[in-house]
Amino acid sequence: MNIYFACSITGGREFESAYQSIVRALTEAGHEVPTAHLAETGITSVEAGIHPNEVYERDVAWIRACDVLIAEVSVPSHGVGYEIGFALGIGKPVLALYQRGRKVSKMISGNPDSHLTVRPYQTPDEAFRIIEFFLPKAR
Amino acid sequence: MNIYFACSITGGREFESAYQSIVRALTEAGHEVPTAHLAETGITSVEAGIHPNEVYERDVAWIRACDVLIAEVSVPSHGVGYEIGFALGIGKPVLALYQRGRKVSKMISGNPDSHLTVRPYQTPDEAFRIIEFFLPKAR
Repeated sequence: MNIYFACSITGGREFESAYQSIVRALTEAGHEVPTAHLAETGITSVEAGIHPNEVYERDVAWIRACDVLIAEVSVPSHGVGYEIGFALGIGKPVLALYQRGRKVSKMISGNPDSHLTVRPYQTPDEAFRIIEFFLPKAR
Repeated sequence: MNIYFACSITGGREFESAYQSIVRALTEAGHEVPTAHLAETGITSVEAGIHPNEVYERDVAWIRACDVLIAEVSVPSHGVGYEIGFALGIGKPVLALYQRGRKVSKMISGNPDSHLTVRPYQTPDEAFRIIEFFLPKAR
């Protein structure tokens, strides 16, 4: 499947290694992840060099083209919040994952949209098991 | 005017005093600000006691009813990012203000939506002057 993986860039990279583990598991399982490079170390300075409008248009085009959006929401991010809203607005299934114990905005956890699933995880392995359970239902 | 003021709650309250100054200036100017209490000190624990779905439905109803949404985006927030996307999606004028020098997500700063205005400010007084310039055009 074509999976848009959404993670914090400007908002903070505290969970970067989790982003990388999730993206690696997705690509190893044969999924297409256009945003895979956004999990890489050093991406913040790479993205800083791209015109904001170019980033926006690129990301929105990827969301339009994806089958599902998977967001890691352990670290607050305007961009990821916006992307979740945008994806739900055009009817894409969205899975929001967060490290167990982190606080998640009630605009995410309290959203009754049937296309949205919100789940905590402890380890990247557990995150990937949640994803494997989610994907077949999202087809 | 009916103004939805959006600020970070779960994401962090570093700019709480700016939120309060902006909300005070808006209400003193005669505007209706249904979210005014979200700028108050101690709101995080108050909001924590409300069911997530109740917060979501309340905030979305306020966005639907507002004339404009003014967001303070100095501190990353999934909720505020989501609210900006939601408001633009239903055609509401949005003003995103951030403390000069803070980094703003390119999903906000790069968004070409003609209903969105993004501006830096140094002091709450400057923020309010930007708002006073923005509001008449948003009518």
